[in-house]
Amino acid sequence: MSETMTGAVLPGNSTVKFRKYPVPEPGRGQVLVKMKASSICGSDIRAIYREHLGKGPEGYQGVIAGHEPCGQIVKVGPMCREFKEGDRVVIYHISGCGVCDECKKGYMISCQSKHRAAYGWQRDGGHADYLLAEENTCVRLPDSMSYLDGALCACGFGTAYEALRRIEVSGQDRLLVTGLGPVGLAAAMIGRALGSTTIIGTDISDQRLSLAVNLGLVDHAIMSDEATLAKIMALTGDQGCEASIDCSGAASARLLALQGTRDWGRCAYVGEGGSVSFEVSKYLIHKQITLFGSWVTSLGHLEELVERIDRWGIHPDRTCTHRLPLERASEAYQLMDSGNCGKVAIVWDE
Amino acid sequence: MSETMTGAVLPGNSTVKFRKYPVPEPGRGQVLVKMKASSICGSDIRAIYREHLGKGPEGYQGVIAGHEPCGQIVKVGPMCREFKEGDRVVIYHISGCGVCDECKKGYMISCQSKHRAAYGWQRDGGHADYLLAEENTCVRLPDSMSYLDGALCACGFGTAYEALRRIEVSGQDRLLVTGLGPVGLAAAMIGRALGSTTIIGTDISDQRLSLAVNLGLVDHAIMSDEATLAKIMALTGDQGCEASIDCSGAASARLLALQGTRDWGRCAYVGEGGSVSFEVSKYLIHKQITLFGSWVTSLGHLEELVERIDRWGIHPDRTCTHRLPLERASEAYQLMDSGNCGKVAIVWDE
Amino acid sequence: MSETMTGAVLPGNSTVKFRKYPVPEPGRGQVLVKMKASSICGSDIRAIYREHLGKGPEGYQGVIAGHEPCGQIVKVGPMCREFKEGDRVVIYHISGCGVCDECKKGYMISCQSKHRAAYGWQRDGGHADYLLAEENTCVRLPDSMSYLDGALCACGFGTAYEALRRIEVSGQDRLLVTGLGPVGLAAAMIGRALGSTTIIGTDISDQRLSLAVNLGLVDHAIMSDEATLAKIMALTGDQGCEASIDCSGAASARLLALQGTRDWGRCAYVGEGGSVSFEVSKYLIHKQITLFGSWVTSLGHLEELVERIDRWGIHPDRTCTHRLPLERASEAYQLMDSGNCGKVAIVWDE
Amino acid sequence: MSETMTGAVLPGNSTVKFRKYPVPEPGRGQVLVKMKASSICGSDIRAIYREHLGKGPEGYQGVIAGHEPCGQIVKVGPMCREFKEGDRVVIYHISGCGVCDECKKGYMISCQSKHRAAYGWQRDGGHADYLLAEENTCVRLPDSMSYLDGALCACGFGTAYEALRRIEVSGQDRLLVTGLGPVGLAAAMIGRALGSTTIIGTDISDQRLSLAVNLGLVDHAIMSDEATLAKIMALTGDQGCEASIDCSGAASARLLALQGTRDWGRCAYVGEGGSVSFEVSKYLIHKQITLFGSWVTSLGHLEELVERIDRWGIHPDRTCTHRLPLERASEAYQLMDSGNCGKVAIVWDE
Repeated sequence: MSETMTGAVLPGNSTVKFRKYPVPEPGRGQVLVKMKASSICGSDIRAIYREHLGKGPEGYQGVIAGHEPCGQIVKVGPMCREFKEGDRVVIYHISGCGVCDECKKGYMISCQSKHRAAYGWQRDGGHADYLLAEENTCVRLPDSMSYLDGALCACGFGTAYEALRRIEVSGQDRLLVTGLGPVGLAAAMIGRALGSTTIIGTDISDQRLSLAVNLGLVDHAIMSDEATLAKIMALTGDQGCEASIDCSGAASARLLALQGTRDWGRCAYVGEGGSVSFEVSKYLIHKQITLFGSWVTSLGHLEELVERIDRWGIHPDRTCTHRLPLERASEAYQLMDSGNCGKVAIVWDE
Repeated sequence: MSETMTGAVLPGNSTVKFRKYPVPEPGRGQVLVKMKASSICGSDIRAIYREHLGKGPEGYQGVIAGHEPCGQIVKVGPMCREFKEGDRVVIYHISGCGVCDECKKGYMISCQSKHRAAYGWQRDGGHADYLLAEENTCVRLPDSMSYLDGALCACGFGTAYEALRRIEVSGQDRLLVTGLGPVGLAAAMIGRALGSTTIIGTDISDQRLSLAVNLGLVDHAIMSDEATLAKIMALTGDQGCEASIDCSGAASARLLALQGTRDWGRCAYVGEGGSVSFEVSKYLIHKQITLFGSWVTSLGHLEELVERIDRWGIHPDRTCTHRLPLERASEAYQLMDSGNCGKVAIVWDE
Repeated sequence: MSETMTGAVLPGNSTVKFRKYPVPEPGRGQVLVKMKASSICGSDIRAIYREHLGKGPEGYQGVIAGHEPCGQIVKVGPMCREFKEGDRVVIYHISGCGVCDECKKGYMISCQSKHRAAYGWQRDGGHADYLLAEENTCVRLPDSMSYLDGALCACGFGTAYEALRRIEVSGQDRLLVTGLGPVGLAAAMIGRALGSTTIIGTDISDQRLSLAVNLGLVDHAIMSDEATLAKIMALTGDQGCEASIDCSGAASARLLALQGTRDWGRCAYVGEGGSVSFEVSKYLIHKQITLFGSWVTSLGHLEELVERIDRWGIHPDRTCTHRLPLERASEAYQLMDSGNCGKVAIVWDE
Repeated sequence: MSETMTGAVLPGNSTVKFRKYPVPEPGRGQVLVKMKASSICGSDIRAIYREHLGKGPEGYQGVIAGHEPCGQIVKVGPMCREFKEGDRVVIYHISGCGVCDECKKGYMISCQSKHRAAYGWQRDGGHADYLLAEENTCVRLPDSMSYLDGALCACGFGTAYEALRRIEVSGQDRLLVTGLGPVGLAAAMIGRALGSTTIIGTDISDQRLSLAVNLGLVDHAIMSDEATLAKIMALTGDQGCEASIDCSGAASARLLALQGTRDWGRCAYVGEGGSVSFEVSKYLIHKQITLFGSWVTSLGHLEELVERIDRWGIHPDRTCTHRLPLERASEAYQLMDSGNCGKVAIVWDE
């Protein structure tokens, strides 16, 4: 093993910068992971790449970027309890304090402690040859899953899974997905695995609609415009979908998700940012709708998701349209920023 | 029994008009109810009294008004199966078609058939000496409850109960009630009976706040202004309330209900009309909130509510500040329209 | 239309007897249904055919047998609100009083009134050329479903659906079905439609195991003996199934269902009769299992089931191994009693 | 601080033995807790004191006994993140591996790793002057709670809370508690705080019934005999209780809990050991009952419980009838073994 490695940081002016780092040494309860895949999330673009927008839990602190890491353990620190050299692992994207009430339930995403650190935001992430990870943020990757499959679960597929789990999608449901970016594609793929019989996706980008159709993830792909709702109703016998999820973060798509939900149905919002505005009697009360806010996922549910993906035999990596080596990280971020893509990932030879 | 009776209709210009009617004869599956209490709902004011606003299920068809009726059966038509002369009954406010999927679950409120008829809107209601009711819309009134208690359950307390049932209020929860009109007072009273330890009410009317305090229904009554949220947070250790319900229908109060809900909490909207607008990441996603639309209640839940009120030994009629005889119905409606009151009811000597 | 019709009654000594009846005239709120399919339920055999065992709601009163009826409306009585001549309908197997709290929720099965009458038990059922039905017990049959599909939903598939709905089966779950009689086959078929990825069925009859396999309803069919549990564990990575349902009513199979359920899983019992005995710490507490009793289904859920079956494009009638005309009802009952069959139904030319 | 301390061990022949130990030094992520209260659980008697019965997770390994510890932190090891000297803490009774799927959700009770260690069973527990605890098993004790209140939450009240949370007790429910030992008393106390309007307790011991009545924890205390069910039905208008919990572990009481549950109600079993046997149609299916197995509680729910107890202003220590110093531990165990007591605890001067 070499003693130094290259890592990518994001200065915040839509560029990527490379630096040399010593390969870290795992301390107590830590493991050293040789990176195999480290995908880029929409939040990396929105809150770091273009400009350092966030504060607190959303504040980027100049560390190696990448919060969707997956790789193979090459060294194990003292007092590790479960993992050993050679194990393939996906890393939950946040290390929490471990003692607050959110951490006690596994929702490190909501940890309020100063000790909370997201990989790639407040502690070194996956855009380097090696990652120093807390053992208790690692989840074992089943043999059937590629490293890239794993990376995509760490945040994006986890987000979709958490929301679909909360709205309890099953074969009872038609599913409406507004916004077919990476999280929307994940929702469609997982929704199908949960049993949804009909999946309708909407987006404002032709390219994204085509991608969803070509991957076979949606049954109907509809351009978002003033006729979209009518088309959804026509496809569902004028009922709407029993379950819906907004993955766009756009106010109009959020409204559409509510409108396209069947009476007594469930709707989840996971797309970040912005606002929503709607007539309450018409779209919530008289329709008897339940609307869920859902934020990323918990460590326990990531473990569960990975187990289910293995069982389902599905491959999140199919939603990844571009795989580039670390040295082409600049290109990767530009591409992701352009939106003319599905998921984009940094990958290493396996 | 006399052969004619007086009934009150609402011409839609903020007046009440009286007419003479023959006392109806109960047909098959019907009962004749001697009215004892017939309370006025906010929707009567909003959609009928001032102006005939509604269409379809909200369209007033010139019938005897009053959709919160309670009284005593004086005559039973053929083929009635459960009730007999002398029985005290509260009447669910809508007779549905009985065969659609909503009726099959007891949610006549959502019946889409042309046969759906709300008492006081599309078929004669409770503002007359007698009411012709379908037996299958009657719920037996326990001895411990007054007729006025019963009338208040038919719609208003039913609405509050349905929503609190859906958000599953218990001793685990502090409860925030935005809007202390009759439904808000009902939510506070039922919330306490469900076990809520701390009930915080907000309103823009000093009078309503005072009423809620004087009735002992809320632990804290807060005037709605820009400092309200801070006061709620101060009262809850900076956490907010585990459960919240908007009974106002005002956009600002709806936002406040969301803001005042604790992370992972549940919020219900029952106040009708208008819209809501909010930042989705901040108030729904990162707080992991579930938001419920809830519309009135079902026949089965009305039965359940009446059973529980009997068990709890509480009296909805305490929220009624004004009880007037039928001949003073004009005054009753003016009062209710003014908002300077709690609940207002037409009552008969018992 | 002829003026008389033949109907089959069950004297209780394992025979079927035929009688002549006048074709009934639909009264108010009633419809006359020309029978197309009328299937035989296990409870008909257990509680009527062999011997008249039941009392009260399970007491057979010498009426025309058959509580799973499906046919076409040929005459409509006065005051019917939804259905008309020519409509294809499945009939919920019980007419309730319509006013008790169970009826108010659509669970006529639990109606305690003396007015409760099950078709084929306390009022004339489907084993005749015509059936007189209450309009409010009819559910519209979608075009995609055969009359026999409909008949099978009236009780058996309804029972399986109610239970699987209660344990919330989805693509998250492997499903264990103990007992592959008609209800067990229904559970397997619906479980698959709900998304279950792996369906394991057990029975003590080779013939039933073969039938389930040949119909493609189970992924694994296991003979019930002392090695069954080990086989289930081997098939599920030593975890057991997330969801399980006992459709046998046998004590050993009920225990097996609990044992074969994964930690934190859900188990439902729908098979009738007999008892169960189990070690509580080992099979319920330490496994954190939730065990549901579930009894037939509600009118609302029957409507929902029929809608879903149409959407899923599945055919319950595939589980019917023997279709005989009314005049061969004796043979049909003998066959069903022998257990050497799937579902058995009386059918008419369509 | 002295360098040695006394600790009590349980040789397994119904005696208590004292040994000298060095006061431990907290390592990384550990805290040293000066013990203030360390209560005795029924499982200590059943599985250790009388005889060393358990294996694996129930195997006693000769360590200092006591798995319900509460005290004050006097020394903090390196890398602790939340707690500091002087903090009052209750200690969750198990330290899990921290990386398995159960630990990831906070259910260390179900951790399957060899690293799992219960305080007082596989690692030194609370029957000594000092306890070495993992920081991540500590929960902050609110000022309003005594150390003994805290100790009682660590296992017994946690067990009752978890089960009542799972069956969702609220003001909607009457609650039946079978078995009024320490966990049964806890269920009654928490049930009331959750809003239950009527609490019925049963036991075979006059003394326990009296204790429950004298503490005001139950509304009705009924001796368990063949007339008990009839009495429960008489007290509940022939309906039974909406919610029930067996805390006895006795087969007859478990059956009684099911029998005394109202149709559509929920029943939880938490009492350990033995079996249950019941007629399935009569007591589970036709009553539409849901039966929950529930095992102790999770770390997250212990935190939640402590927060709620503070809010409710209740005191678990009221159920403790005997408080003895460490040197009288023999007496304490004899007493607890006799059953002629409520909860028994080892306490230190505060």
